[in-house]
Amino acid sequence: MNIKTENNSTDEWSDKKEQASAWFFTLRDQICASFEELEDTLSAGPHASRKAGRFNRKPWDRGQNNEPNDTGAILNGGGEISLMHGRVFEKVGVNISVVEGRFSDEFATAIPGAKESNGQFWASGISLVAHMQSPLVPAIHMNTRMIVTSKHWFGGGTDLNPMIEFQQDTADFHQALKECCDRHNPDYYPEYKEWCDRYFYNQHRKAPRGVGGIFYDYLDSGSWDDDFNFTKDVGVTFDTIYPDLVKRHYNKDWTEEQRETQLVKRGHYAEFNLVYDRGTQFGLKTGGNTEAILMSLPPIAKWP
Amino acid sequence: MNIKTENNSTDEWSDKKEQASAWFFTLRDQICASFEELEDTLSAGPHASRKAGRFNRKPWDRGQNNEPNDTGAILNGGGEISLMHGRVFEKVGVNISVVEGRFSDEFATAIPGAKESNGQFWASGISLVAHMQSPLVPAIHMNTRMIVTSKHWFGGGTDLNPMIEFQQDTADFHQALKECCDRHNPDYYPEYKEWCDRYFYNQHRKAPRGVGGIFYDYLDSGSWDDDFNFTKDVGVTFDTIYPDLVKRHYNKDWTEEQRETQLVKRGHYAEFNLVYDRGTQFGLKTGGNTEAILMSLPPIAKWP
Repeated sequence: MNIKTENNSTDEWSDKKEQASAWFFTLRDQICASFEELEDTLSAGPHASRKAGRFNRKPWDRGQNNEPNDTGAILNGGGEISLMHGRVFEKVGVNISVVEGRFSDEFATAIPGAKESNGQFWASGISLVAHMQSPLVPAIHMNTRMIVTSKHWFGGGTDLNPMIEFQQDTADFHQALKECCDRHNPDYYPEYKEWCDRYFYNQHRKAPRGVGGIFYDYLDSGSWDDDFNFTKDVGVTFDTIYPDLVKRHYNKDWTEEQRETQLVKRGHYAEFNLVYDRGTQFGLKTGGNTEAILMSLPPIAKWP
Repeated sequence: MNIKTENNSTDEWSDKKEQASAWFFTLRDQICASFEELEDTLSAGPHASRKAGRFNRKPWDRGQNNEPNDTGAILNGGGEISLMHGRVFEKVGVNISVVEGRFSDEFATAIPGAKESNGQFWASGISLVAHMQSPLVPAIHMNTRMIVTSKHWFGGGTDLNPMIEFQQDTADFHQALKECCDRHNPDYYPEYKEWCDRYFYNQHRKAPRGVGGIFYDYLDSGSWDDDFNFTKDVGVTFDTIYPDLVKRHYNKDWTEEQRETQLVKRGHYAEFNLVYDRGTQFGLKTGGNTEAILMSLPPIAKWP
């Protein structure tokens, strides 16, 4: 896939856009390698005799046709879906994309700076959801992105979704994120932790989706370099702490009852994504790639 | 449960409200009996040696507290959830409810006559979703309701969701609904069939949810009796044609591959309900009973 988008070569942001999207590609490669290593190193537990999984990559490209789709939006560009069904990862999708176009009029009013850009936007990001074989290994979501309208910003975050919670995991996950945030701005962790708690909340169940993490959006501190470095650090931190949490539990046996708990929690996860998740809404409402957007849904779930 | 709501005893509609809600209770009893009979008469196939299922009833009652809930709505009254996990019906929920209160200001603008009633409403209805053990037996949805604001109307419908389609089933289901509609008004079937096709459409998958049926709303022909009789006929017709379709297939064996097809289609069904279904949105946005609202979700589903 050609990661450059055609009609931005002359604007002042083209270099920054290229740096950001190149980073999302690099991070994708690093994470996929880390996850395949976890597939390789599993040594015990119910699935140890299975074959280690490998990611399958599938590019998608909408081209540069500049035609409004049936949502009224124009969406050019494309991305790459990396999907693995393994012995540690029951289903993990890692999506990267570089798209640009024009929001529908209705949608543009909800996006900062989109009115002033006549709906024109550029966006690139990485998005990842992992559903694990073992109910003892937490599921995870991570996403970072850069968006440009007449404004420009970074956003993203990561939140942990244990099916059976180990409090040490939760504490260490938050500690890693706090250290990451503190390297950039002491205000970030408390603010972004709270934003995460507020955002990943299943209103109809009156329950948080998981045990939190960080969530940030519209980050434009005045220094693009600082914001980009923070966003990179979130990705690197994720790629360190999550494999560490997986290794704590992936060789353990689990019970049928624990598996049932996992499948029911996955149902609640699916509810959140379909009813509340803004990324899902953004994707579906701009006529994005449905396969990539709904990759977050669990391989199997129960509503008993 | 006391099906009368307290503060309507003096309004001119109290008798009509009581007739309608009493009908929904009666229809519930009839349908539950029909479905338990299907559980009893299964005589072959993979689950024939299992015990016949029975409905479990669970009342819920919000009382008459007149306090706004966290959606800003006031919701008094209650309902009854009938749930069965059987050998024919993997999961079937039949809900009835009689509620009244006040819509939130935001929600009131979307409901006919609610502005003029200062958001006050009364609603009663029956709602049913059946997910079947056999992938050869179609899943089904049926719902009818009466709503009163400063206006009053009936709404509802039924749509068939085969996992593996038998064209004769689809034809006979539609024929039964056409005959039902034609008994009341020759315009109803073409109009309500088309409304159903338009409504039960999964926009992001660009695919209908099932093979259609009828959908109607805001029905106020000028004769409440006529509209009530039509709504009753929809319920009776459902209770005839659906058990007939079940009996065509429920004793057959099925394959693992057919079961997989079923589980994936159920995932799409869950997507529709959580992303698009107005009843689900209505329920969740008025602070309705989450357990009753989400009873429509499949017992198990896959997103491979």
